[in-house]
Amino acid sequence: MVYRLRPATVADLEPIVRLLADDQLGAARDGGFTDDPEPYRRAFAVIDADPAHLLLAVLAPDGAVVGTLQLSFLPGLARRGALRAQLEAVRVAGAHRGGGLGTAMLTWAIDVARQRGCSLVQLTSDKSRVDAHRWYARLGFVASHDGFKLRL
Amino acid sequence: MVYRLRPATVADLEPIVRLLADDQLGAARDGGFTDDPEPYRRAFAVIDADPAHLLLAVLAPDGAVVGTLQLSFLPGLARRGALRAQLEAVRVAGAHRGGGLGTAMLTWAIDVARQRGCSLVQLTSDKSRVDAHRWYARLGFVASHDGFKLRL
Repeated sequence: MVYRLRPATVADLEPIVRLLADDQLGAARDGGFTDDPEPYRRAFAVIDADPAHLLLAVLAPDGAVVGTLQLSFLPGLARRGALRAQLEAVRVAGAHRGGGLGTAMLTWAIDVARQRGCSLVQLTSDKSRVDAHRWYARLGFVASHDGFKLRL
Repeated sequence: MVYRLRPATVADLEPIVRLLADDQLGAARDGGFTDDPEPYRRAFAVIDADPAHLLLAVLAPDGAVVGTLQLSFLPGLARRGALRAQLEAVRVAGAHRGGGLGTAMLTWAIDVARQRGCSLVQLTSDKSRVDAHRWYARLGFVASHDGFKLRL
């Protein structure tokens, strides 16, 4: 299987939102793209206009979008003014898991972060996603922190 | 005690870096501003030029910088295209803790996030910072996630 990784376009929004909704945690928060695509389109326009954010679409050989992630570059003073890369919304379609696609996506993201001069890649993952945590650990990530969220 | 919260200027960099270095975890990563201020100045210029990032300086009545935090606004598709606010590098000088200053700083940050239309405020905190975690929980933050870091 040969997958293609490329920047997402507005035409990818519907399948990407479907990926975000297609899991136990996302189902309650996302979906309904066809009912109300505007909030997603507005967010995409902001992401797309700013080189500090990269939204990735991963295409299967048949052209279907089967993976996504967002990589953001955050300036900061800590760690001697280090740029950090942050991963959000990492998803691989169920039927395409277990064959190394997710690892290829993360490896791509880590390489891009290195090329941009980041000294750290970070992400948070819901404590219930135990399988994902083993996978992040195999890629070299250390679960050194707790991730706190406050809904407004 | 009346403290003043305002955007950081380049003149605040030295005391802010001292705050970052002045704890068990930061000491190994930061400091040495006077030896080599350039990486900090470059990072500050990026933060200062981009309205997606706010770097706060908190001044004691005598004008000393005794607190800092960085608030960043991140677009994303998840949660119906929600903007999220991220806190990094939250520090209060030891002599000024316990009197509600940190709570006032976080309350300010949460208010700004709400005004900007964020639906979530997030941060990660080293698992060893147990006292800080109790404090975040009192402010309404939920430690629902693990925070993974990969050093490059």
